[in-house]
Amino acid sequence: MSADLTRLVDPRSIVFIGASDRQDSIAQRALENLIAHSAFDGELYLVNPNRTEVFGRPCLADISEVPDTPDLAIITTPAETVLPSLKACAALGVRFAIVFTAGFSEVNEAGQKNEADMKALADGTGMRIYGPNCPGLTNVNKRLGFTFSPAFKTDLRPGSTGLVTQGGALGRTIMQSMDRGLGIGLWCTAGNEVDLDTSDFIDHMAEAPSIDVIAVVLEGVRDGPKFIAAARHAARRAKPIVALKIGKSASGMAATQSHTAAISGSAEVNAAVLQQLGVIEVDDLDELVDVASLFALRRPRGDEKIGIFSMSGGSAALAADMIGLAGLDLAQFSLQTIATLRELLPPFAAIANPLDTSGNILATPHLLYPALKAVAEDPDVSITLFPIPLDYGKFIEIVCDEIIRVRTETGAMIIPVWMSDRTGSGYANLVAADVVPIRSLRNAAKAIKRWRDFGQRLERDEPNWSPMALQAENIAPLGPAVTITEVEAKAKLAAYGLPVPAGRLCRDASAAAAALSEIGGPVVAKIVCAAITHKSDIGGVKLGLVSPDQVSTAWTDIVARAQSHFPDAPFDGVLIEHMAPSGGIEAFAGVHRDPVFGPIMTFGLGGVYVELFRDVSRRMLPVTAVQASAMIRETRCFELLQGIRGQGASDIAALEALLVALSDFFSDPAQAVLDIEINPIWVGKRGQGVLALDAVLTLGSVR
Amino acid sequence: MSADLTRLVDPRSIVFIGASDRQDSIAQRALENLIAHSAFDGELYLVNPNRTEVFGRPCLADISEVPDTPDLAIITTPAETVLPSLKACAALGVRFAIVFTAGFSEVNEAGQKNEADMKALADGTGMRIYGPNCPGLTNVNKRLGFTFSPAFKTDLRPGSTGLVTQGGALGRTIMQSMDRGLGIGLWCTAGNEVDLDTSDFIDHMAEAPSIDVIAVVLEGVRDGPKFIAAARHAARRAKPIVALKIGKSASGMAATQSHTAAISGSAEVNAAVLQQLGVIEVDDLDELVDVASLFALRRPRGDEKIGIFSMSGGSAALAADMIGLAGLDLAQFSLQTIATLRELLPPFAAIANPLDTSGNILATPHLLYPALKAVAEDPDVSITLFPIPLDYGKFIEIVCDEIIRVRTETGAMIIPVWMSDRTGSGYANLVAADVVPIRSLRNAAKAIKRWRDFGQRLERDEPNWSPMALQAENIAPLGPAVTITEVEAKAKLAAYGLPVPAGRLCRDASAAAAALSEIGGPVVAKIVCAAITHKSDIGGVKLGLVSPDQVSTAWTDIVARAQSHFPDAPFDGVLIEHMAPSGGIEAFAGVHRDPVFGPIMTFGLGGVYVELFRDVSRRMLPVTAVQASAMIRETRCFELLQGIRGQGASDIAALEALLVALSDFFSDPAQAVLDIEINPIWVGKRGQGVLALDAVLTLGSVR
Repeated sequence: MSADLTRLVDPRSIVFIGASDRQDSIAQRALENLIAHSAFDGELYLVNPNRTEVFGRPCLADISEVPDTPDLAIITTPAETVLPSLKACAALGVRFAIVFTAGFSEVNEAGQKNEADMKALADGTGMRIYGPNCPGLTNVNKRLGFTFSPAFKTDLRPGSTGLVTQGGALGRTIMQSMDRGLGIGLWCTAGNEVDLDTSDFIDHMAEAPSIDVIAVVLEGVRDGPKFIAAARHAARRAKPIVALKIGKSASGMAATQSHTAAISGSAEVNAAVLQQLGVIEVDDLDELVDVASLFALRRPRGDEKIGIFSMSGGSAALAADMIGLAGLDLAQFSLQTIATLRELLPPFAAIANPLDTSGNILATPHLLYPALKAVAEDPDVSITLFPIPLDYGKFIEIVCDEIIRVRTETGAMIIPVWMSDRTGSGYANLVAADVVPIRSLRNAAKAIKRWRDFGQRLERDEPNWSPMALQAENIAPLGPAVTITEVEAKAKLAAYGLPVPAGRLCRDASAAAAALSEIGGPVVAKIVCAAITHKSDIGGVKLGLVSPDQVSTAWTDIVARAQSHFPDAPFDGVLIEHMAPSGGIEAFAGVHRDPVFGPIMTFGLGGVYVELFRDVSRRMLPVTAVQASAMIRETRCFELLQGIRGQGASDIAALEALLVALSDFFSDPAQAVLDIEINPIWVGKRGQGVLALDAVLTLGSVR
Repeated sequence: MSADLTRLVDPRSIVFIGASDRQDSIAQRALENLIAHSAFDGELYLVNPNRTEVFGRPCLADISEVPDTPDLAIITTPAETVLPSLKACAALGVRFAIVFTAGFSEVNEAGQKNEADMKALADGTGMRIYGPNCPGLTNVNKRLGFTFSPAFKTDLRPGSTGLVTQGGALGRTIMQSMDRGLGIGLWCTAGNEVDLDTSDFIDHMAEAPSIDVIAVVLEGVRDGPKFIAAARHAARRAKPIVALKIGKSASGMAATQSHTAAISGSAEVNAAVLQQLGVIEVDDLDELVDVASLFALRRPRGDEKIGIFSMSGGSAALAADMIGLAGLDLAQFSLQTIATLRELLPPFAAIANPLDTSGNILATPHLLYPALKAVAEDPDVSITLFPIPLDYGKFIEIVCDEIIRVRTETGAMIIPVWMSDRTGSGYANLVAADVVPIRSLRNAAKAIKRWRDFGQRLERDEPNWSPMALQAENIAPLGPAVTITEVEAKAKLAAYGLPVPAGRLCRDASAAAAALSEIGGPVVAKIVCAAITHKSDIGGVKLGLVSPDQVSTAWTDIVARAQSHFPDAPFDGVLIEHMAPSGGIEAFAGVHRDPVFGPIMTFGLGGVYVELFRDVSRRMLPVTAVQASAMIRETRCFELLQGIRGQGASDIAALEALLVALSDFFSDPAQAVLDIEINPIWVGKRGQGVLALDAVLTLGSVR
């Protein structure tokens, strides 16, 4: 599935089609980047039928004249010439082509057609196409710019963050965070993504030795399984993906679609899928930079605690607030650390975590080094958060230099937070030393939380799990939908080990009365008719029946009501079913097919918890035992199942087993399930089990 | 209650005690600020017994030699000399004294004693003291610096934001946001706040004509009623207070207390009080600046809609996301606006809200002005959000200049969002024009939401309401606490119009049986004993009794159980009470006394909604009808009361009336209530009313 992009990002030879030195043309700017600002030392062939020389280099009239098979073609010629040029490149055996040219699917249908032809060419020949309508590719770690952006030469801080974007502008926002110290080794942004796309770049970076963290600005995912595969690849390499998903609100989604024509998908499903894949979702671009910068320093274990080194009481308290509100833990300084700090610092310093040295330390800057070292090396401290509330010229410059010194000497994770809008020489020194100051304590705490939690997630990951959507047949349409009756649905579920109440489908009143004695009361009587989905609304359900008379009267009454509401609906009879004991909790579980990511299971407690508090969890299928357990535990209602206010614990193990069985059932292609909702699920006390009390099941055709 | 601080912030004459020109001394730096960098043209008297001349000005040996009554004294002498100096100033009739000197309550008990003496002096003489242990006061709009900070001369961007902080460092963080364009007219930061405090400065700024918005960094409130009065003063002037509260988490609170010794209070109560007072709480310092900058432009109506003007598809979508996620509304462009934009912009621009001109507009910068003007002047657009994703030198400089031009010409609220970490000439031009670029779209949306919502809040404010805490007797301790029985509590509540079930206190079994026929069944029987708070746990409650036999057996059984568990507790009998009809919803309401802010009512639906979802609302007393209505409606459970899933609506009007009656009851000093919880409150369907089913009431002594 994944392409080896090594020769795209680091080609040995390049053919440049549409070479020109006309000032400010795209070709001229791209060539200048390549010749003057890149460290490219391979062969470069220029092609332009109207020129014999460009930038003092010979120019070929046609691609076919290239005496070699270049790894990469760069195409800058007008839209109508792009496809013929690509064909000529493919004929030559070129492996990759970058197309800067705009004027395709983003402008009209002819452009869409043109792109479809390009895609067919790529599929048919194996030549991979990057673009069109893109600013190109920037390999900072190798100092290679296959881009016409005049910013290439200014944005060259190498590093272990790989960047993948769809739109170019927001990618450049992130590239400019180099001015905040972030090193970005490789930036891929393939515009209309006719062939190579976000997933390919993630997949490449998952293997790329110089990349430790993959930052993604994600406008939409067209090919769910491909994205999933790339994300799983990164997860297997324990390489974090940090993503900002755009198009989360209705209007954002509309804007994204007009922009990239990519499918944005439902925000809730997207978020659940990203979480399940181990992708760290962030809320804005600055957070993307913050989180990436932490991963670029170190991978988390998941249990890291925080030390706060502050020079003012207000900053100390604010930092402690942010740590506490983010759900992080402050470290407990050792007696040794406390003793060292007491010896170093004046009596009015607050020797605790958070540490407040007081601003007087600026007057005795030689104390900064030993005090910071004591905190950073405390055995309980994994991260030292260092709030810098204000710029204060030379004084703060010394502070920043000591931060750099202790970081360098000890390798400790010391995270300075530059809180002021004034960025002076201290800030500049941090950035020059590749330290990324975070710009607010709130952002710092959020970033550390996401970083730390990734460590916990890594530990729980099931390396061999892969989602059902990767099996293509499971996300293809399954033909016309048919909703079957509750009785049929429960029979199918029971065959997969899902517990359902004892029941009988009764075709007359006397059979109903007989069923009562067979299965024992109390029973419930329910109309069975595929056309009737809201059974209660038409009086099609009677609860708590205990005598044969009650049951037989209920049968007659229910049938009469059903026939008066739906005179023409073929009905199967009345289901007489043993009632669940009182005292249980109601839950629900369902699976639907997301058009991008395939089958998604949703779990929650029923009723108002879902309607008012949207308290549900979601997973792509298959749901393993480990995942079922996590799904149940991550709802806020979990406490109810554990037994709140003196209630005993519910049968959580049985509920987990039900979710796994539901996943197995749905995952069996022979069942051809389109979607299913089991609602309510009765959850008894521990040992009492669970029961699928009702189920709505829609089937497709089995192919 | 409030002091007139006009002559503190703008004195006609000053006496400076401890005058010195010793390089880098506090006195020298303060005098330099006053003489060289301030526009002070009043009389300045210098006092130092060891000098005859400082900075070429004559120096008096003693305060008593000052031939005038200065408005302000500035004191820089060592801690032990401060009190005598203050006394001399008071003797002279000086109205205000600023004490820079440190070494008071922040270091030891002697310092605390010293401060207590200073406070007594202020109270006794009427001379108001600012400090000690503070960096002073900065009146930027008058260019007056009564501060030893070397930063005074650099932080001089005037404006309509007033700043109040407790710690100096975080105040300076905000002052440095002048580098992001915020003008700050006056900054008060009184350190240990021995006399004048945060509330006095808010109170002053509420009247100050040059201040439109009050930004506060609040570490703790010692005097709740004083703070409330100041906040109400600002509310009456419709002047927004934007506050960052520090000490919200347990560790943050601990750090704040060690820092300022101010009472931080419970985070939840603090947040509720701030909200009720109309104070806009923000989550971090950058947000404080963002929100203040919007208020400095204009006051909101509460119904403002947003236009998005963007130059890239990604920014358009991200901006729309943030607006949507924040709960704001995008404007609907008029046909005229659409037509204008279509005419101006190329065919591939996305003409909609969000508008995406595409990056090509940078090549035709003359279109920026008319296009931006069209959006900003659209009748449905109140705020134009302009994301600037990257710095691009001259190109973005032009963009910024056009933003400034349209803002200036039309007066429209155009908010540029500078998303990049690279701040180039465009950014500098915005700042130079007093435009405050917000640094992320997330922050921009959050700030606009808070700004807009203030408009809605202003509309709902009850100008004559003032909280009960302002009446001092109500927050004083009321003597030893006594918990009374349910029967006594309900009698008291009933007298204030709170509906309670019909019931009889029965001292023997036959009286209980008789009570059944009087009040009608079903009834509940409950032990009545002030010592037993968890009646159900000991079998002291029997539900659903319908026959005289059942009631009389219940009486005997309950009494036996109570006596076996609490053999020595004096019990009053058994309450036989009519049961509430089935089908109601349970709620709870209680009032407790916060040590800082006085009586606080808490409301919520009972049980798991509160325990799992913390879904409660709070108000300071008195709770008016308007506030009771809002309290009920702001819980997420409100939908349950409205009638979710086909259930009818509950009797919300009766519930509102109950909350108001509870407030009235608690507010009556004759009742001497310390705290009360009514739990559960039965809420019937519309027209059925509500009932206080149980109540725990603790009384203090009436003085």
